[in-house]
Amino acid sequence: MVVVMSADAEEADVQAVVTVVEGAGGEAFVSRGVNRTIIGLVGDVEQFGTLNLNALRGVSDVIRISAPYKLVSRENHPDRSVVRVGGVPIGPGTMTLIAGPCAVETPEQTLQAARMAQAAGATLLRGGAFKPRTSPYAFQGLGEKGLRILADVRAETGMPIVTEVVDANDVELVASYADMLQVGTRNMQNFALLQAVGGIGRPVMLKRGMNATIEEWLMAAEYIAQRGNLDIVLCERGIRTFEKATRNTLDISAVSVAQRLSHLPVIVDPSHSGGRRDLVLPLTRAAIAVGADGVIIDVHPSPESALCDGPQALVDDDMRELAATVRALPPIVGRTLTTV
Amino acid sequence: MVVVMSADAEEADVQAVVTVVEGAGGEAFVSRGVNRTIIGLVGDVEQFGTLNLNALRGVSDVIRISAPYKLVSRENHPDRSVVRVGGVPIGPGTMTLIAGPCAVETPEQTLQAARMAQAAGATLLRGGAFKPRTSPYAFQGLGEKGLRILADVRAETGMPIVTEVVDANDVELVASYADMLQVGTRNMQNFALLQAVGGIGRPVMLKRGMNATIEEWLMAAEYIAQRGNLDIVLCERGIRTFEKATRNTLDISAVSVAQRLSHLPVIVDPSHSGGRRDLVLPLTRAAIAVGADGVIIDVHPSPESALCDGPQALVDDDMRELAATVRALPPIVGRTLTTV
Amino acid sequence: MVVVMSADAEEADVQAVVTVVEGAGGEAFVSRGVNRTIIGLVGDVEQFGTLNLNALRGVSDVIRISAPYKLVSRENHPDRSVVRVGGVPIGPGTMTLIAGPCAVETPEQTLQAARMAQAAGATLLRGGAFKPRTSPYAFQGLGEKGLRILADVRAETGMPIVTEVVDANDVELVASYADMLQVGTRNMQNFALLQAVGGIGRPVMLKRGMNATIEEWLMAAEYIAQRGNLDIVLCERGIRTFEKATRNTLDISAVSVAQRLSHLPVIVDPSHSGGRRDLVLPLTRAAIAVGADGVIIDVHPSPESALCDGPQALVDDDMRELAATVRALPPIVGRTLTTV
Amino acid sequence: MVVVMSADAEEADVQAVVTVVEGAGGEAFVSRGVNRTIIGLVGDVEQFGTLNLNALRGVSDVIRISAPYKLVSRENHPDRSVVRVGGVPIGPGTMTLIAGPCAVETPEQTLQAARMAQAAGATLLRGGAFKPRTSPYAFQGLGEKGLRILADVRAETGMPIVTEVVDANDVELVASYADMLQVGTRNMQNFALLQAVGGIGRPVMLKRGMNATIEEWLMAAEYIAQRGNLDIVLCERGIRTFEKATRNTLDISAVSVAQRLSHLPVIVDPSHSGGRRDLVLPLTRAAIAVGADGVIIDVHPSPESALCDGPQALVDDDMRELAATVRALPPIVGRTLTTV
Repeated sequence: MVVVMSADAEEADVQAVVTVVEGAGGEAFVSRGVNRTIIGLVGDVEQFGTLNLNALRGVSDVIRISAPYKLVSRENHPDRSVVRVGGVPIGPGTMTLIAGPCAVETPEQTLQAARMAQAAGATLLRGGAFKPRTSPYAFQGLGEKGLRILADVRAETGMPIVTEVVDANDVELVASYADMLQVGTRNMQNFALLQAVGGIGRPVMLKRGMNATIEEWLMAAEYIAQRGNLDIVLCERGIRTFEKATRNTLDISAVSVAQRLSHLPVIVDPSHSGGRRDLVLPLTRAAIAVGADGVIIDVHPSPESALCDGPQALVDDDMRELAATVRALPPIVGRTLTTV
Repeated sequence: MVVVMSADAEEADVQAVVTVVEGAGGEAFVSRGVNRTIIGLVGDVEQFGTLNLNALRGVSDVIRISAPYKLVSRENHPDRSVVRVGGVPIGPGTMTLIAGPCAVETPEQTLQAARMAQAAGATLLRGGAFKPRTSPYAFQGLGEKGLRILADVRAETGMPIVTEVVDANDVELVASYADMLQVGTRNMQNFALLQAVGGIGRPVMLKRGMNATIEEWLMAAEYIAQRGNLDIVLCERGIRTFEKATRNTLDISAVSVAQRLSHLPVIVDPSHSGGRRDLVLPLTRAAIAVGADGVIIDVHPSPESALCDGPQALVDDDMRELAATVRALPPIVGRTLTTV
Repeated sequence: MVVVMSADAEEADVQAVVTVVEGAGGEAFVSRGVNRTIIGLVGDVEQFGTLNLNALRGVSDVIRISAPYKLVSRENHPDRSVVRVGGVPIGPGTMTLIAGPCAVETPEQTLQAARMAQAAGATLLRGGAFKPRTSPYAFQGLGEKGLRILADVRAETGMPIVTEVVDANDVELVASYADMLQVGTRNMQNFALLQAVGGIGRPVMLKRGMNATIEEWLMAAEYIAQRGNLDIVLCERGIRTFEKATRNTLDISAVSVAQRLSHLPVIVDPSHSGGRRDLVLPLTRAAIAVGADGVIIDVHPSPESALCDGPQALVDDDMRELAATVRALPPIVGRTLTTV
Repeated sequence: MVVVMSADAEEADVQAVVTVVEGAGGEAFVSRGVNRTIIGLVGDVEQFGTLNLNALRGVSDVIRISAPYKLVSRENHPDRSVVRVGGVPIGPGTMTLIAGPCAVETPEQTLQAARMAQAAGATLLRGGAFKPRTSPYAFQGLGEKGLRILADVRAETGMPIVTEVVDANDVELVASYADMLQVGTRNMQNFALLQAVGGIGRPVMLKRGMNATIEEWLMAAEYIAQRGNLDIVLCERGIRTFEKATRNTLDISAVSVAQRLSHLPVIVDPSHSGGRRDLVLPLTRAAIAVGADGVIIDVHPSPESALCDGPQALVDDDMRELAATVRALPPIVGRTLTTV
């Protein structure tokens, strides 16, 4: 941690900082510059954070240098992790395709979408039973009925299930059906929910908040990890920017950055970031090429009647191209498509 | 609602849209342009929203024209509303000062902050007992113990209490102490929480999500209203932009825009938007001048030892200037400071 | 300047940094932390900037601490400056109203707008003869003919003129007519233009780039100052964010921040930031209340026929309210309306 | 174009719009909805743009539907274009590697960088002689001396040259040396410069403004095209967002979107968007996989002593990996690396 004094700070102000830091058991190294004095702190950063140093007189800025997350950091765990979902690995060396309908609507639609997904190379089935919707007047999902449909389709196809949980109270219920729990973009800082999924014995897919920095995303993962659950998969799904040609702006660099900072697997959602069917395949290729550990894609047997996000679901022709892509591209980046 | 066809759409594509709309009981008016055809839809917009029109062939864009919120809209309720919190009004004609410590730490600190607030002209006391924190290692608040402190200070000072609730499970507990429940910026789209506060008989202060558009903010209010609670106060607290000189960018225009679109009162939080003590007074003046129905401000008897957001809490000199400002400025914009 | 070493940097890497810094005549103070080593540099920051320190092995980050601008900085010039435009002051203690048509169209329209502006309290006339337009098919301004119209209206009304220059080649021409040159938001980093206006003996109004940080804005002012022209007025006009309810988001905090960092006057353009007539008066009030040294406003005798930005020009009723506001509000913040 | 009336618009307001539109030779189709009336306009959109419709009473919004650019639009030119730079093609079917030093420093450094680039598969040499720099105290480039160095290296290596021009006055000079002129991100809306490069017989690479929407980028290209120069290559180089882990956020989706809207080739600059060496190769792979027509990369023989952007230049090991990537990846997306 570095304390930067303001240009008009006096010697007494500098001494006050040193005294506070040393009083907390830390060490303070003072460097006097032409315009400013800076003080390097050595010791327990978390404790320094409670000292409220930037409220002291003459302090202009306090700059944190160590990462504020620990359990998910690669500094303390250099090897990248593999998370297993119902036996299917997500992590280095492989490229895992997760696909399925945005929302579970009927048993037929879900089974048909699962078959499409499987034919394209998917080994995990996604499908939403609880939907967080911006409007209270929009379709909110089938709830537990949807979970039962997913379980039936798993029995039929053998595909483990990934599904969203939106309320801390529902975590046990959803975990009793799902193989991996999804925390959605709007809930990335719903700390009650993060703690609840941290306490349950199931892998978690944590979507990046559409307004969250990579650091905040990793801090949200740290909340889950802190409760004892390290089976976390990070999912980049686009951030909010000034550009309106796409629903969100896929932050493709974030995949590499997050993999460098954290040992957790990082996957990409090309369907929700672009919000347009014609972008799903190009963005899928970009995601695999940049080194994502997986992609998660919306498919629907009849997108024109989908109750949720129909415009971005892939249709038949696309599925054939997807199948070809997920086989041809991973080897170029030293990976193989995950198979069962 | 307007459907814009793509440049290469065929006549059959246009007819397909018309058929779908008419099949849903709506009317479709077709305008054929030189490059494009557009179709104006008349009827029930919510229902059109379920038709998934932009998945139809040849459809380039679907543009919604009516506001997607109803209960909080000024279209159906032209007069601006007054929300009463323990008898204190927030709304047109008045300017209400809410102040207190960011976090409740001790009975003494809370009482002292309340006295400072009251001396400056505050009629409502803010104070956090449950704190949503980005880091799992940061101080998370005193919980119910903090609520009891707030209740004691209310008894002592007569100031009604505004305090945050972060978990749907805590709504009843917090409502048993608080006069107004606060939903924080990170929870603006925590729909379970919105529904829970919608079902409890207490006014709600809804902070704008730091990444939320004004429309999404009003949709979040609609979630609360839909459960029968229309005592909602909107609070602008800054949005996330590329500028890093301030913690967030106070969107001062949003006050006017929200007041024009919705009948709900709109207040401003100048402490959290700037994140810097030296900006609190200028931004407070801007907020009152733009026409806010109130401001909510952090005060702390000894900011240098605050457990939360100390750097932005006002100190004594500032409090005197604040007191002068909240008396002198509102009359210029046709308001008076709310008193008890 | 502070050099932060990466967690896996070796002692030799630290020594290499020290050697390079000392070789350049600087001093390096090494602080060894539990996870990281940091090195505080003392000496000539500009020179350190050329050392390319973050390309050295083991260097994780290089953090600049001093402001990169000098001539416009308040560190070296603590008193806030007054800039005089044809005798009219802009700076501390006063609030200067600049108004006029977005684009000069005809002598009659310009004179009429100037009379409206003057009646409301304006002492400077704005008007565009050269217009930078996003589309090559939009009206680009009358050019020199427009400048002659402005000069005639100045002769008639006594109001000094503020007008935009968009090309370094036109600076002499425009300066031969104008009392203050405006550099527009799209040209804030047109360095050839900045240098040209820096070399001409006329005050310059520098609009903030809609995507520029406050630091970049001050660096652009430094370009002008470096050529010997310190008569610079900064103008906040809104930044680009995700919010689309307004054309841009007025960054009201930037007024205070820029005044704290720089001695230059700071004014606000409430017309272009909001892009909506109904926001001009509220944002004008906010600007004056926050402490702006002036405001610049679009007025047009018949906005419905304006060739440029008609929707945001004030009309008669608004003008009366504006006149009342610019007289009543400044005294509350210790200023008086500038008069001739 | 669609005119949306406000909820309280009267019949006379609607008629006024119709009258204005018909008076301008257009047709107006009125659709009366439950809450709002909308009017579809058919005719010459550019002319409607001058009518200032949203200043009319009762008009709530005017929505443009056709693209505002024509010459660069794919609507009027469905086949994607190939631009030839000194004989080297950029366009569909190929993937062109452009590489070289950010800034030309010495003949040796430039030649060495060119050799590195060529060995990796580059067929065009980039190098800056005129540098737009945020700080007036930073290295501004060698100017014409740098252009002569580039010409010498072209003679030696046979690689055509791409170099930036920052001032309309320099266009002839730079064009007398360069095979392709680069317009940089800060100059994307420097209209004088756009017009100057539009009038010279040389291909132009137009970088996207870091704050520009895709539509504004295409409008800037339209400025160039309108002067008769259609040899334009668009270059995505990252946009400014709230995320600070990378210098800018590479908008990988923009490649696909721009290729769909415009017939012009689109390339990617992975060096400047990320601003970090460790991101260059992953982002290069993402760019090729998404379907970019080329990539432009910084290389420097000794990055630690580079006068400009050293931290992002590739070094030897990276160059070998780059060479492998640009050969292996394009065939997967139906392209071949451009060779001479």
